[in-house]
Amino acid sequence: MEEPHTGERGGRVCITIIGAGTIGLSFAALHLSQRPNAEVTIYDTRPELEAYVYDNLSASSPRAFTEEQIRDLFTSKRLRLASSLSEAVRSADIVQEQGPENESFKTHIWEKIEQDASPTCLFWSSTSGIPASKQAVNMKSKSRLLVVHPYNPPHIMPLLEIVPSPETDPVIVQRTLDYWKHSGRVPVVLGKETVGFVANRLAFALLREAISLVNEGVASPQDIDQIVENSMGPRWMVAGPFKSYHAGGGAGGLQSFFDNIGGTVQDCWDDSGKVNMGEAWEGPLCEEVQRTYGKRDPVELQERSELTKLLLSTRESHNAE
Amino acid sequence: MEEPHTGERGGRVCITIIGAGTIGLSFAALHLSQRPNAEVTIYDTRPELEAYVYDNLSASSPRAFTEEQIRDLFTSKRLRLASSLSEAVRSADIVQEQGPENESFKTHIWEKIEQDASPTCLFWSSTSGIPASKQAVNMKSKSRLLVVHPYNPPHIMPLLEIVPSPETDPVIVQRTLDYWKHSGRVPVVLGKETVGFVANRLAFALLREAISLVNEGVASPQDIDQIVENSMGPRWMVAGPFKSYHAGGGAGGLQSFFDNIGGTVQDCWDDSGKVNMGEAWEGPLCEEVQRTYGKRDPVELQERSELTKLLLSTRESHNAE
Repeated sequence: MEEPHTGERGGRVCITIIGAGTIGLSFAALHLSQRPNAEVTIYDTRPELEAYVYDNLSASSPRAFTEEQIRDLFTSKRLRLASSLSEAVRSADIVQEQGPENESFKTHIWEKIEQDASPTCLFWSSTSGIPASKQAVNMKSKSRLLVVHPYNPPHIMPLLEIVPSPETDPVIVQRTLDYWKHSGRVPVVLGKETVGFVANRLAFALLREAISLVNEGVASPQDIDQIVENSMGPRWMVAGPFKSYHAGGGAGGLQSFFDNIGGTVQDCWDDSGKVNMGEAWEGPLCEEVQRTYGKRDPVELQERSELTKLLLSTRESHNAE
Repeated sequence: MEEPHTGERGGRVCITIIGAGTIGLSFAALHLSQRPNAEVTIYDTRPELEAYVYDNLSASSPRAFTEEQIRDLFTSKRLRLASSLSEAVRSADIVQEQGPENESFKTHIWEKIEQDASPTCLFWSSTSGIPASKQAVNMKSKSRLLVVHPYNPPHIMPLLEIVPSPETDPVIVQRTLDYWKHSGRVPVVLGKETVGFVANRLAFALLREAISLVNEGVASPQDIDQIVENSMGPRWMVAGPFKSYHAGGGAGGLQSFFDNIGGTVQDCWDDSGKVNMGEAWEGPLCEEVQRTYGKRDPVELQERSELTKLLLSTRESHNAE
């Protein structure tokens, strides 16, 4: 697979991260650890940026950088901080933006970035909801901007939803795909800009049904979690819904599955309560979840991250055999 | 934890499996391998039952019994075949039914089983849709029957949905829970009999959204599968949706999560296409899935089972540390 921009800089890839929140740092750590040829520049307006990066980069890293390793990254110039936006983007091959989820912020910053970046630079937004076609309205050339939406945290979860606008150049999409496949990720290109993209929409559809079942007294939030962790979770980690149901249909595949239990599927759909946000269920449900799981516990969250990484690497090794 | 029916038979548990299809054999193998004290009797009207059990039990087993091991199970009487229903249930501590999904079959067979079984025997149905209250209509005592709904295949997937009817005795529910917890499974008791129970309803809600996104040209079935396998699958294997979103909300938990992105969640719900079974999408979608994944390949299915078992045992070892 071809590197984007190999050759002109002796194989280096210069990536500028705009916005160093959790997702920005997670992406920075991912580039640095997955791509030995990556050079990362971080631009963020927060004060004491260097100390902040030292404090937070190792926690977000797929390979937990030590303080010494972060110092080495700075010394070798694989990691830099930029003091202005224009300096940050000037030598970039890729600009990756994760600023505020605010349409006017996005349209304004891309207009500025376009003025200083190289004409071949890729523009990626990590937005979870503002499509590239809206972000690009002030740009002279809208062909280089697309959404690269991570499933959090990006340094652990393999999925990246690649969402071009109708004006994004297919060559740019291909270069984006090449970069991520080469980085051990699973980029999936969506056919259309759509509200919420795909992963969240699927998860939210299941969440809606889950809330409805809690409301009806069928299961508690913890019951729902135990059910999902011991059924769909493991199954869908191995084979997604269409692949699973296609196998479940036996020799006749998905069509047989629908022929056999389509009636039950429709009965379930028809029986669904269809809750909405902001209704009376919201407060009591949030209180119940709070009582069940308590306050955010960093040790437990770290444990979950470790288990997720272990399961993903177990799958990867098994499939590589 | 107390064994059900320990003592009276020196610690043995006698389980009668009614219906030796894939699920029946999978349960038989699960009892035999998870419970050294289990004695399993199989009743099924198919011809050449013994040869059929030899041919199929090892494929359904959590520990792949060899032909010799199956012979030993028969010789030691840990595994028996019954030639009549009344003989099959007479000494049972548990009768587990997985006959045809047909209400009159269920009501008829439980009426007969009740006549011959011991008064303390537990009655479990593996039905995926006919609630215990409907199955029990012809029974004299409706207090012993409940649904124990597996997530297929039960010898691999930990979840069991325990669905009592309003007339099921809570003591019977507790004995059922004790048996399954003692067998390394995750039984979850539902608060109400509901169409399709919970696991399938949640999965079908996601499936509906997935079909809708395919229809709208946003993603192909294979895209959907790749998305789920690399995002929700691994996440939900570690923590279910409420637990995950509670963590995603930061210090404010699920309420903060809803405060922050509830608008996007509602937008996604409102934008959903809400397909129905039997509409024009069904044929083309099934054809596309068939083109993508081809015919049922036993080797690939075995591979998926192996990976599922490996991921589950990896999680179990990690959590036991």
